[in-house]
Amino acid sequence: MGFENKEQDATVRPLDASKLKYTFTTSPRDVPNPTIACAADETVCTDHMIQAEWNAATGWSTPELKPYGALSLMPTASCLHYATECFEGLKVYRGYDGKLRLFRTEHNAARLRMSSNRISLPSPEIEQLQELLHALVSVDGAKWLPESQPGSFLYLRPTIIGTQPTLGLRASKNAILYIIMGYMAPVGTIPGGMKLLTSPEHMVRSWIGGFGHAKVGANYGPSVAASHDAGKDGFHQILWLYEKECTEAGGSNFFVVWRREDGKKELVTAPLGDRLILDGVTRRSCLELARERMADQLEITERKFTIDELLDAHANGRLLEAFAAGTAWFITPVSHIRHRDHDIHIPLGGQSDGGEVTAAIKGWLGDIKYGRVEHPWAVVVPERIA
Amino acid sequence: MGFENKEQDATVRPLDASKLKYTFTTSPRDVPNPTIACAADETVCTDHMIQAEWNAATGWSTPELKPYGALSLMPTASCLHYATECFEGLKVYRGYDGKLRLFRTEHNAARLRMSSNRISLPSPEIEQLQELLHALVSVDGAKWLPESQPGSFLYLRPTIIGTQPTLGLRASKNAILYIIMGYMAPVGTIPGGMKLLTSPEHMVRSWIGGFGHAKVGANYGPSVAASHDAGKDGFHQILWLYEKECTEAGGSNFFVVWRREDGKKELVTAPLGDRLILDGVTRRSCLELARERMADQLEITERKFTIDELLDAHANGRLLEAFAAGTAWFITPVSHIRHRDHDIHIPLGGQSDGGEVTAAIKGWLGDIKYGRVEHPWAVVVPERIA
Repeated sequence: MGFENKEQDATVRPLDASKLKYTFTTSPRDVPNPTIACAADETVCTDHMIQAEWNAATGWSTPELKPYGALSLMPTASCLHYATECFEGLKVYRGYDGKLRLFRTEHNAARLRMSSNRISLPSPEIEQLQELLHALVSVDGAKWLPESQPGSFLYLRPTIIGTQPTLGLRASKNAILYIIMGYMAPVGTIPGGMKLLTSPEHMVRSWIGGFGHAKVGANYGPSVAASHDAGKDGFHQILWLYEKECTEAGGSNFFVVWRREDGKKELVTAPLGDRLILDGVTRRSCLELARERMADQLEITERKFTIDELLDAHANGRLLEAFAAGTAWFITPVSHIRHRDHDIHIPLGGQSDGGEVTAAIKGWLGDIKYGRVEHPWAVVVPERIA
Repeated sequence: MGFENKEQDATVRPLDASKLKYTFTTSPRDVPNPTIACAADETVCTDHMIQAEWNAATGWSTPELKPYGALSLMPTASCLHYATECFEGLKVYRGYDGKLRLFRTEHNAARLRMSSNRISLPSPEIEQLQELLHALVSVDGAKWLPESQPGSFLYLRPTIIGTQPTLGLRASKNAILYIIMGYMAPVGTIPGGMKLLTSPEHMVRSWIGGFGHAKVGANYGPSVAASHDAGKDGFHQILWLYEKECTEAGGSNFFVVWRREDGKKELVTAPLGDRLILDGVTRRSCLELARERMADQLEITERKFTIDELLDAHANGRLLEAFAAGTAWFITPVSHIRHRDHDIHIPLGGQSDGGEVTAAIKGWLGDIKYGRVEHPWAVVVPERIA
């Protein structure tokens, strides 16, 4: 090996968002119809992207905002063979007050640092990543997420890939950080609710001592086969089990509201301690809001819980609500869980927004993101008008 | 999801190596000094590469042999986010009889099909992959692995990556197969033998229900940190444990020769059944040769064995030999294994080729690959003289 991470070395340049170089496109594209864009086989991105290169010896290049376009990678690039790649997913929201907002980007930035470190790639500073996210939104937001469409969003994807053109397996001495922004289908409301299928017995998503807590590419490709099979049977996501523990629902965290055997109402989700699941920003926000606003009505608990507990609660009429929580799926009520030969049907409540706990949390979070209320989690991004 | 794999569909073109299009470079490069090339930070590849594109609806494009060069990928390409990528590693050998040989390529091709399927990418036919490997070797072999250097090799890397430019997680509807060939440092003999460190308690390489048996990118990036730390302490590879079972030694399979408690001499390696380890071509060849030629001297066994059994055999003077076996490391004798506070020192025998079983297997395999004997495993590749 012999490669030393020189990030602490004073001669190695840190990522410096304040020096961002702007190279605007000379071929601006038309903004598509969002519905058509979301249904396309290719993600439609905005006019620009942000990119910075890293080298183990010299550190980060000056980041550049530049026209969106292809990357040129050698066939030997580390990320194409060894999954030296990680990413984040977050959204920018066009508020009902006409303003653009980003939501708790410090947590996405911190998680990207952690993920990148897990695969021996560089870990840029949180504040620098936040500033670059703001810069891209500021430049492309006004055009691509127009003020005329309150209640809509665009999806941001910061990505770090290892690019050293070397087939020997080692920590990549070269990397690229890039941030792109594009359309993604709106979710959060599925007519009839989300249907989950528990993971097949011969497939485990993550394991103790693995990397299920990190947003690294390695967690995703191998999970596609199970999701694909579930999709053919009409299920939206896999409910991944670890032994019998309920961990995540596809790309989201998984919450249950039930009445415990002692009669107490409880909101429960899997814990972070074993590093099996992603430390979701939406998960965190759900827990914090519930603890702040619902602690008099129910207990809020992070603990291991099994599919057998879920089956038992259902059989005894104690299962009240379930929902998936994540940036992509927002808060989506779960109406059906199939585990082997058992079917759990969960009432969706009077509204499509799920039962009362689900609907309350979803409402609060939506209000914050879309500027119906002012809240420190949602930060307004000033727009650059071209 | 809604994506159907159309590989069985008659309207979808299979990969057809017989139609390989040849586009020769107009800028041939000088062949470097192999020692310098192997020490470089970038893998030096030969003049050409082979590439074919796949589309779920139409199948495979006509494969093309073309000048080696960069790939152009959209920032949204599946392989850059979701580790939809897999590869193979094999070598072409310049024999002592002056001929070029490839070794058991049917097993690499079969494994690439399996790996690709595990991450929902297309699975080209074994014979077509073999034919493409032969074509690249045939074109670049004479120049880049000259007849004047018997006993040398080049490394071949067939790779399949998912390229659909879509951020939604799904089976990629586009893929690229490419085959490149380049220099890799010769191994097989480490002065003083290979030193292994058992995996740290908080890291597990693969797990039951995972994908440790497939040569997918997802197995590699997350393992770099442990290998890197071990390298700083002078170890060459990690001996990955699953609970207490010895599974793989870094990028190689792991073999032990010991005297069992019943007095019988045994060659043992981890089994394939749990799908924790790679079904190595060198592993398979070691077992087959040993069964054919050494069955009167020792038992040859594929079974689970633990680090505790290894410590016990060492403490009682029953541990005779150990070696790593794989395409990259060939057969490398292991001289030292550290597990927590315990050190296992293994005699290397009179020669640097390890003890008698290790040295015999290594000798037989080397003779086959380098044409000292004729054997059906090693196939001569006719060379195209430019």
